[in-house]
Amino acid sequence: MGETRTELSRLGEFGLIDRIQSKFSISNQSSLKGIGDDAAIIDAGDDSLLVSTDMLLEGIHFDLSYMPLQHLGYKAVAVNVSDIAAMNGKPEQIVIGLAISNRFSLEAVDALFEGIHAACQNYKVDLVGGDTSASASGLVISITVLGRVAKDQVVKRNGAMVNDIICVTGDLGAAYIGLQVLEREKQVFLSNPEMQPDIEKYEYLVGRQLKPEARMDIIHELRERGCVPTSMIDISDGLASELLHLGKQSNVGIKIFEDKVPIDHDTYETAIEFKMDPITCALNGGEDYELLFTIKPADYEKLKNHPDIHFIGHIHNDPTQHVLVTKQETVVPITAQGWKHFKGE
Amino acid sequence: MGETRTELSRLGEFGLIDRIQSKFSISNQSSLKGIGDDAAIIDAGDDSLLVSTDMLLEGIHFDLSYMPLQHLGYKAVAVNVSDIAAMNGKPEQIVIGLAISNRFSLEAVDALFEGIHAACQNYKVDLVGGDTSASASGLVISITVLGRVAKDQVVKRNGAMVNDIICVTGDLGAAYIGLQVLEREKQVFLSNPEMQPDIEKYEYLVGRQLKPEARMDIIHELRERGCVPTSMIDISDGLASELLHLGKQSNVGIKIFEDKVPIDHDTYETAIEFKMDPITCALNGGEDYELLFTIKPADYEKLKNHPDIHFIGHIHNDPTQHVLVTKQETVVPITAQGWKHFKGE
Repeated sequence: MGETRTELSRLGEFGLIDRIQSKFSISNQSSLKGIGDDAAIIDAGDDSLLVSTDMLLEGIHFDLSYMPLQHLGYKAVAVNVSDIAAMNGKPEQIVIGLAISNRFSLEAVDALFEGIHAACQNYKVDLVGGDTSASASGLVISITVLGRVAKDQVVKRNGAMVNDIICVTGDLGAAYIGLQVLEREKQVFLSNPEMQPDIEKYEYLVGRQLKPEARMDIIHELRERGCVPTSMIDISDGLASELLHLGKQSNVGIKIFEDKVPIDHDTYETAIEFKMDPITCALNGGEDYELLFTIKPADYEKLKNHPDIHFIGHIHNDPTQHVLVTKQETVVPITAQGWKHFKGE
Repeated sequence: MGETRTELSRLGEFGLIDRIQSKFSISNQSSLKGIGDDAAIIDAGDDSLLVSTDMLLEGIHFDLSYMPLQHLGYKAVAVNVSDIAAMNGKPEQIVIGLAISNRFSLEAVDALFEGIHAACQNYKVDLVGGDTSASASGLVISITVLGRVAKDQVVKRNGAMVNDIICVTGDLGAAYIGLQVLEREKQVFLSNPEMQPDIEKYEYLVGRQLKPEARMDIIHELRERGCVPTSMIDISDGLASELLHLGKQSNVGIKIFEDKVPIDHDTYETAIEFKMDPITCALNGGEDYELLFTIKPADYEKLKNHPDIHFIGHIHNDPTQHVLVTKQETVVPITAQGWKHFKGE
């Protein structure tokens, strides 16, 4: 295929996306926003239509030795809904591309669709189309979600302003630690199939990995409280990576405080057990599907009593300075490990 | 996974889709039409938005030993655009899910996106989003296309009426015969890599397999001539299968004439060379991406001089009788081989 060969790992996912984006331009009037946010924005009269797609592959994004198919179906929908939530939208439709190898029975496919159905019910989303196919090896699920939001309510990544308060929902790092627990128990099982997995005490962490929820509850509550974030993104790759996206696209600086980053007690204890730094897990763990957003200082009063929204820092005016203030009050730059699939993770 | 195991091959693709559809219902007002047409229909004010998704997998839908990556990228877009054409719509946006194993270089990905870009230019479609990921084995491309059509212009599969004329564009069976040529040359090459492939004389057929076009030209011409088909579908699985879809969903009978089915001279000759019946190739070959549609008899005058629209039969009132009248004037039922991936094709 030509003379030179450049490895994809040299670019990484974001480098590849930037490269693709630079070669494509937008020409239709109805394309209001293309690549670069959690969802694209399409003109639909008074509303904006939101579109986002996510593909999950066996052996890359999930391991069926510990991921029940019902949970996988649910999660595949939830991670897409989360992208609509991140634009302050309401999800309405999904289409599913599904490739299945013949090692899957009809009963297995039914289990997968049970989970998809439960997620559709929970998030009030209609399954309106799809494509099913055989697969030469593993299971592939590709979901595209359509959402809707009034034109003046859409929230992008580029609206954060100096002095805005940085907010995060729920707690972070648990999904990543849950994955470590599952991987450890899998190794134990593989070396001795008589051993029963010991995951009861890690129920919360494992649940965060296997059964993530999109935070549509927060989107509804923000609306009820009359608060439109100035910028927003969902936390799929880790807090650090998402903070850098907001900083870059809004052209502002980020300052957060370690002692404000929400980490559950179980996450903290288990990270220590795994000889990991809890804040590193929260910053770089990924798959939390919580929301990261910024609000105007004037909106703080509307949210300050919310039990599940945490105020972790603020926006400042130097776009080259994205920093974490540690518990010891040292200031360290925020760096993203980013996406490691191409590096043979 | 439970006690019983039912093989997916017992249902086939359409059986599986029916099963999924029966378990899901539509609840959002904006979901105007769900599973069962070439695209779903979403409310967007005066317009309807059309959504369709197609997934192409290496080893199932394409073989990179004879499919250049540029062509693959182009085809992946074209087959999606064809679904929008089949609803009488105009494609406007795509999102792409892409999974790539590390055997692909950046140069290979660039070649793929060159083809995608060429198709986006040709069909005036914007790439507005996507998801890229590693793959444990082959290449997977999942494209979702959004299209638009005025509410009173949308054409579905269920509108064919008694006495309507059945029309088909272009010619049929060539893509299938092209695939046979490519497969034969691959086997020749594998048994003796010194041999040069002999595909020059099959250029048209091979081109139909590797470089299909969505018939947006026909959609524009139908509009110019003031003709809105009563029903329409694109020919991806073969004429027979698509005729049965129109018949079933419109609850009418189909009658077509073998001598009216358009088959190119090269397709005919090469089918004979491969000891295949040309009409069988046209009926069951698939991947032609031509349009099959029905028109009111009164619209015949508007289209009768069109060089690339063929009138192959008509609709009658017995929904249990879908028949082909052969050149020998015997009447045979139309049957679809349908989709064979799960049968270990």
